[in-house]
Amino acid sequence: MHLTPEQLEQFDRDGYLFFPGLFSTEEIRTLTEAVPALYARREAYNVREKGSDAVRTNFAAHMYSEPFARLARHPRMVQPVMDLFDEQVYMHQFKINGKMAFEGDVWQWHQDYGTWLNDDMMPTERAMNVAIFLDDVNEFNGPLMFIPGSHKKGVVDARHDLSTTSYPLWTVDNHLIAQLVERAGGKQGGIVSPKGPPGSMILFHSCLVHASTSNLSPWNRVSVYLSLCAVSNHIRRHKRPEYIAHRDFTPIACLPDDCLRLPYPVDLPWRDGLPASALQTSSVPFADMKQAA
Amino acid sequence: MHLTPEQLEQFDRDGYLFFPGLFSTEEIRTLTEAVPALYARREAYNVREKGSDAVRTNFAAHMYSEPFARLARHPRMVQPVMDLFDEQVYMHQFKINGKMAFEGDVWQWHQDYGTWLNDDMMPTERAMNVAIFLDDVNEFNGPLMFIPGSHKKGVVDARHDLSTTSYPLWTVDNHLIAQLVERAGGKQGGIVSPKGPPGSMILFHSCLVHASTSNLSPWNRVSVYLSLCAVSNHIRRHKRPEYIAHRDFTPIACLPDDCLRLPYPVDLPWRDGLPASALQTSSVPFADMKQAA
Repeated sequence: MHLTPEQLEQFDRDGYLFFPGLFSTEEIRTLTEAVPALYARREAYNVREKGSDAVRTNFAAHMYSEPFARLARHPRMVQPVMDLFDEQVYMHQFKINGKMAFEGDVWQWHQDYGTWLNDDMMPTERAMNVAIFLDDVNEFNGPLMFIPGSHKKGVVDARHDLSTTSYPLWTVDNHLIAQLVERAGGKQGGIVSPKGPPGSMILFHSCLVHASTSNLSPWNRVSVYLSLCAVSNHIRRHKRPEYIAHRDFTPIACLPDDCLRLPYPVDLPWRDGLPASALQTSSVPFADMKQAA
Repeated sequence: MHLTPEQLEQFDRDGYLFFPGLFSTEEIRTLTEAVPALYARREAYNVREKGSDAVRTNFAAHMYSEPFARLARHPRMVQPVMDLFDEQVYMHQFKINGKMAFEGDVWQWHQDYGTWLNDDMMPTERAMNVAIFLDDVNEFNGPLMFIPGSHKKGVVDARHDLSTTSYPLWTVDNHLIAQLVERAGGKQGGIVSPKGPPGSMILFHSCLVHASTSNLSPWNRVSVYLSLCAVSNHIRRHKRPEYIAHRDFTPIACLPDDCLRLPYPVDLPWRDGLPASALQTSSVPFADMKQAA
């Protein structure tokens, strides 16, 4: 799957591309069915919602779950990202976000690259977010919201919000959000929210400002969020543990297109649990790292 | 404005009726412009969001604000409710709910009549909710969500939730919500969310189960919620203060249809502040009241 010139232009303008139903129901089923067992594990990589046992986000499933390891190497997902960067990519982050029925909490307005810069010292924005829906996404189960074109602003001011939800996030100030939405068309398209069936995929720029509300509906809205980084743009600091921000910069080798239907062998280095090294962090201050770099 | 037989049938089946743009922009403007000064008052009747200074709900503005006192007597709002009950009505509750940009918090799934029964000892469901939009309501600013037909279940089990938000509410259990949504059509219409311009009105049954998510958008979603009760069905207990649950059961006398455009005189008994009586409550236990009744 290669992107057309129109799609490349659209991505440049809006900061995202939406592919409804890109993966079939059958392809997605193996992934969806694997989620409950992964969420049930009492491991550091399962971050639960504030005041609830529901999983907010699961990290690094591609390191210990076969179906997700195959998804991480799927050409329909990886090829367009390589097209956009004209370079090979490695897996920077791999999440299965719960946004579970009744329990799923908000994700405040933020840019992902803000975190990757501030925490991981990733040199530039040459990393891509990919969202793959494991459930129907509709207006009631907390769909992702984007401010089109907001990626053009580069990294905007943010503050480290440690209290609103169970997961710390560099969030963007309300006043700036209002400006960005107005600039993007206000009530006419200033916020967009792609919805669709399981198997839909969104590619979105690492500087695109996004958020999602809580899920009060009886429908789970589980999505996989993969962050693919151009190999030359690998992170320089290990302030966050490896299961959150990966340190293996080997380019992704794609499997064949039918890899979600056939049991191609995949390596699962964390199959038997997280190694101690996956929890280790380095605390070198950002300024010192910058100077050394 | 009288309801047609089709509308009466629709109300019976779905539990609500939606009238997009029933009031004009000009009629609504006088109301919207009065809100900031009302919200700025440091009075018991302004309930603020948890951890924020934004007003979540303002009570009883029709007792101290001219434009809202006129709205409370508007025939376009009152006549259809009298049609549905075939009886005169009084004002049981009058709220201006903020759901302010960025700050507006969720309202959990609930029925209003559950509260009126449990707290106010209102004998039957013969009371109507009316929502009037003062702002555009869209998919991003926390629109009201209904489960169509859920009013047919009468009063369902609820628990008194004192912690989720700043306002105590009798909320419905998640398992029951899932059942009601499934019964109403699941993902095909099991939840509906009327959206429209300022001046739109919704009538909804006091047993209709409803909720709304938080407002992460830069757009306020201020709505007036009026609760009109059939006079014979007036409340029997004063556990909640009068500014929340009114004790004057005089039938509403409508003003002419142009009352939001012309300055008809209205009585404003609380113009100079809440009287001490408006804060007094009676603590007779429900069981004793029931026995005495």
